[in-house]
Amino acid sequence: MSLLKRAEQSLASCFEGAVGKAAPPRLVEAMRHAVFSGGARIRPQLTLSVAIACGDDQPQLSDAAASALELMHCASLVHDDMPAFDDADIRRGRPTVHKAFGEPLALLTGDALIVMAYQVLLNAGHAAPDRLLALMQNMTSGVGLPDGIVAGQAWECEPRADLGRYQRAKTGALFVASTCAGALASGREAQPWYALGACLGEAYQVADDIRDVMGLSADLGKPTGQDCLHTRPSAASELGLGGALDYFQDLIQKAVDSVPACTCRGMLQHLVRNESERLVPSAAYSAYRMPGVQPAAALSA
Amino acid sequence: MSLLKRAEQSLASCFEGAVGKAAPPRLVEAMRHAVFSGGARIRPQLTLSVAIACGDDQPQLSDAAASALELMHCASLVHDDMPAFDDADIRRGRPTVHKAFGEPLALLTGDALIVMAYQVLLNAGHAAPDRLLALMQNMTSGVGLPDGIVAGQAWECEPRADLGRYQRAKTGALFVASTCAGALASGREAQPWYALGACLGEAYQVADDIRDVMGLSADLGKPTGQDCLHTRPSAASELGLGGALDYFQDLIQKAVDSVPACTCRGMLQHLVRNESERLVPSAAYSAYRMPGVQPAAALSA
Repeated sequence: MSLLKRAEQSLASCFEGAVGKAAPPRLVEAMRHAVFSGGARIRPQLTLSVAIACGDDQPQLSDAAASALELMHCASLVHDDMPAFDDADIRRGRPTVHKAFGEPLALLTGDALIVMAYQVLLNAGHAAPDRLLALMQNMTSGVGLPDGIVAGQAWECEPRADLGRYQRAKTGALFVASTCAGALASGREAQPWYALGACLGEAYQVADDIRDVMGLSADLGKPTGQDCLHTRPSAASELGLGGALDYFQDLIQKAVDSVPACTCRGMLQHLVRNESERLVPSAAYSAYRMPGVQPAAALSA
Repeated sequence: MSLLKRAEQSLASCFEGAVGKAAPPRLVEAMRHAVFSGGARIRPQLTLSVAIACGDDQPQLSDAAASALELMHCASLVHDDMPAFDDADIRRGRPTVHKAFGEPLALLTGDALIVMAYQVLLNAGHAAPDRLLALMQNMTSGVGLPDGIVAGQAWECEPRADLGRYQRAKTGALFVASTCAGALASGREAQPWYALGACLGEAYQVADDIRDVMGLSADLGKPTGQDCLHTRPSAASELGLGGALDYFQDLIQKAVDSVPACTCRGMLQHLVRNESERLVPSAAYSAYRMPGVQPAAALSA
């Protein structure tokens, strides 16, 4: 089974196990809309691939850890899309949750998904309470204060924010939690997997900035020009587009190099390179180096 | 030390322990505004009093359990006050979080407080992992699907909702979690404490409906007439004001009777009766029975 298929199936199964019977039907429908909408599932795939590299002796726990982190990611997207932040109408080519279900249910959908993420871990069984508690701590660090994704989003509301810190929190923290979770679910130390998550997470955020400036975000089903619109910190505005593209490539290389020696090293490096190509296609990169050619035009040519 | 003082001190200490250094300062300020604003702390007092009744052999765990549940309660208030729901300007006589800090930070404050509640439990130490996991499951049930407070709020967005189920979820679930947490933190069974939380929680919600209709909500620092405005299910509209008052008294009596035999039975019953008087003062109750007298006028006379 491919990593993506395993991630998808685990998520569906964990969701059903946690949603319970007799919950408010429209809330459940809105949660499904938020979660099952063709996401790339890069975070749970990272968790699962690291778990496999670490032996994956409790696959049910790896599945739960991967799914819980994806639920947190989906929760953050629902709240980020709301009018108070991005005011986005479209996500992954479909109406955002508040557009499809209204703001009250969108607010509750995010809340419910955060709580469900913990429920999914609790449902994984208490055969290894130490691993379970470590996974909960790991997920909580990735989401909460002082450096998780909620803090990252909050830096946008501060008069001053350090770009590196902002990006590490806004995106990096959940990538770090995703790689570390794979190790923790398999009873291993998380530390050797920290750099992979940190580099990939920062690369992801820089790619987002690049795509925003290059007008490529529509390919990911999102509106473009959002960073400038909201005057949030951006690598593209701080380093210039060329600098941001170089920085992105450096981060991807660092991520590839950071994968610890293990039987799955090739698979993990392949996953990172695939994701890099999906985020910033090399055609767009080359187009930028060709004077007079619009990157988006080059891509659609 | 009084229960209230212990609840306040624990909350302050758990908050500081979980907030971390270097979190976004305005987010932290907004979270403090939400949490330290003169709340009655009835839920953590319930947890602590049941913990004491059950031996309280791990007071640090009882404190964490009580504080975590209060953080969840504060999170729900922040999100409920937002324009998507009650659009309330005032809470406990002060500006609501979105009024004081804006909608983006209010949204994030709720999210961050939910995650902090789990962090507070995780920070309580892993000396008793079984108790810790039981407390997490208990809190998660009180907040999430299918019957926690998020589900309760979501029933307001459904075309049809059963009043009992709605009230049990919207308020009862966190009261049940609060009484049960006291037992679980002390390594005891939660079940004997379920009824106390359930009756008190339902009484609390009915009292809210009564206060809303009688125009007493201003005494609690909240706007009045909200239920009718938002056409949400209400005991006062379903049973009539007199019926709702009788039902409230019944629930309080049931709560008092449900307290299991223990050395602290008197203290717990006293706490319930005090809370009953705070919620629906007997003067207001008597005034309703006097024809031609406005309850609110009788109270302020």
